[in-house]
Amino acid sequence: MQAYRVAIAGFGSVGRAAANLLLSRRSRYRRVYNADVRLVAVCGSRSGLTNADGLEEEQLGTLEDGLSGPAFIMKSGADILIEAGPSDFRTGGPGLAYIRSALSAGRDTIVISKGALVHSGRELRDLADGSGAMLKLSGAAAAALPTIDLVDHSLKGCEVLEVEGILNATTNYLLDAMVTRGIGFEAALREAQQGGFAEANPRNDTEGWDTACKLLILANFGLDADLTMDDLSVEGIQAVTGERIEAWRKERLVPKLVGSLMQTNGSFQAQVGIRTYPLADPLANVRGKDKAIRITSDAMGEIIAIGSGKEPLATAAAALKDLEHILTARGAPSLADIVRRSL
Amino acid sequence: MQAYRVAIAGFGSVGRAAANLLLSRRSRYRRVYNADVRLVAVCGSRSGLTNADGLEEEQLGTLEDGLSGPAFIMKSGADILIEAGPSDFRTGGPGLAYIRSALSAGRDTIVISKGALVHSGRELRDLADGSGAMLKLSGAAAAALPTIDLVDHSLKGCEVLEVEGILNATTNYLLDAMVTRGIGFEAALREAQQGGFAEANPRNDTEGWDTACKLLILANFGLDADLTMDDLSVEGIQAVTGERIEAWRKERLVPKLVGSLMQTNGSFQAQVGIRTYPLADPLANVRGKDKAIRITSDAMGEIIAIGSGKEPLATAAAALKDLEHILTARGAPSLADIVRRSL
Repeated sequence: MQAYRVAIAGFGSVGRAAANLLLSRRSRYRRVYNADVRLVAVCGSRSGLTNADGLEEEQLGTLEDGLSGPAFIMKSGADILIEAGPSDFRTGGPGLAYIRSALSAGRDTIVISKGALVHSGRELRDLADGSGAMLKLSGAAAAALPTIDLVDHSLKGCEVLEVEGILNATTNYLLDAMVTRGIGFEAALREAQQGGFAEANPRNDTEGWDTACKLLILANFGLDADLTMDDLSVEGIQAVTGERIEAWRKERLVPKLVGSLMQTNGSFQAQVGIRTYPLADPLANVRGKDKAIRITSDAMGEIIAIGSGKEPLATAAAALKDLEHILTARGAPSLADIVRRSL
Repeated sequence: MQAYRVAIAGFGSVGRAAANLLLSRRSRYRRVYNADVRLVAVCGSRSGLTNADGLEEEQLGTLEDGLSGPAFIMKSGADILIEAGPSDFRTGGPGLAYIRSALSAGRDTIVISKGALVHSGRELRDLADGSGAMLKLSGAAAAALPTIDLVDHSLKGCEVLEVEGILNATTNYLLDAMVTRGIGFEAALREAQQGGFAEANPRNDTEGWDTACKLLILANFGLDADLTMDDLSVEGIQAVTGERIEAWRKERLVPKLVGSLMQTNGSFQAQVGIRTYPLADPLANVRGKDKAIRITSDAMGEIIAIGSGKEPLATAAAALKDLEHILTARGAPSLADIVRRSL
């Protein structure tokens, strides 16, 4: 049985959910992949834990100060990194150093936070290509909603012509509340903040940046585009007034914050802004904190996916889907193994 | 560059669409997979064509009598079979002999018609396991709508708890016409037959058998169930009256013919019948000839997919997606290649 040593950098709610889900699936990994998957290190920004034989769930309650950073993770002997730190697309966030370090060393890397992928996507793709490490990122591309999977697996061979995505749960929740209950943006926002569905500083969501990050990651990593944030026109929902909502309602249209891609001659134009849909369009019926994507291709027409997993579990599960794809790919005997056996 | 020799058995509209799409993508196969994909044989029930160097589109207009059958395909030297014949789940249809012959000989096989998979699914899975051949069947499991892909790839690691699918375009078109335009079943059927959306003998669709076939294939090949048609309760739409439609309309419910799976302790209960959905449910808004599926899993919640590709192109594209997954898997150097090179 082959051992796989996993480290998790970033130990907030998603990192913890990933750790617990991974530990709960160890018998599955043995059964399906003949793989002994061990959680050898976890860390937040200043503290962590490590054990080469594998950490257990009951140890994860208390971290030790000082055990953190890319060097700590490398020293843990991890073969696979799951990066789940806070996202900052303007700097790459703390995740960037972890991901760089892991990919440079040829360690397979599963990225959940979007910042580093948006900030340094090209560099990270090149690092992975250079070292042969696998770079997976379902958790950063709308998580439980299949997005990269659709273009990269289900539509294999087709030319993607257009993409429309309701990619941010917070803004969908806010717009939904404004439309269905006639309340204003500020009131909807306060309500969402009290319910824990919007952050104290909600601008990353409400101004469209989170949607833009996911769109960019889908375009660059799923469709081999080479876009930066400067290539996108980005509008949010903060300026949507009760009057506009009322006017749309009269026309029986439902507004959504949509990230869209339009392909012409192989290159993609990207934007984020409000689009409205008639009631009979499935995208009009994407409620509350759900997310959705519509992908139009040359040979398979339109595919719509709608996802409504509960967080942080759904994002953790998306990252661990990536882990299973890595186990599948790495489980095949390596070239070195085969040569060794044949001599 | 590695050569891949493809044969297509079953040369109706879907087989022809697959042939033309494959030929149009040859430069893609060279570029992406370093693969020289040749169409070395096609055949219908009594006639066919073969050329070891590869057939061209302009040759496909006229087939030669007598070139048909599993022995003809094997003699063509094909590495990969695409089976696109008529479907008959009660006998396995003509496809069964082609698929058996290809899998037994270790040839990778892409199945489009459902009959053989429903009739002899267990045998065909065992044949593939025994010979190491790959058995792919996206085209038989609702084609452009991702179904197997979702459970087998996008939800990897999750436990599937429940599946609901609007899997038959003809019945969805008929119910949609009955609901939105208030016409009866017989009138809707005549209209659909005149428009070419329903077959002269529509019972395979209207009585729910086509939905049942797709459901069974998804359960057995995607979820590792072991169901036969006898395990399913199957109802169709032929008994839906104008009165029932009117009653649902008053309750603002939309009827759909749904194939469903419910998992308990690892085993699946399957049935086909009418379910009704409130207008705000995305499944209520699956219109005309579209198809849809909702999959509920333990860790990722609900995922809905809706597909609306045009036939026969969309089904051909689903089969050729399978082909690219085979090219990916077979493109990695084989064990024999590596051992040979290392000696």
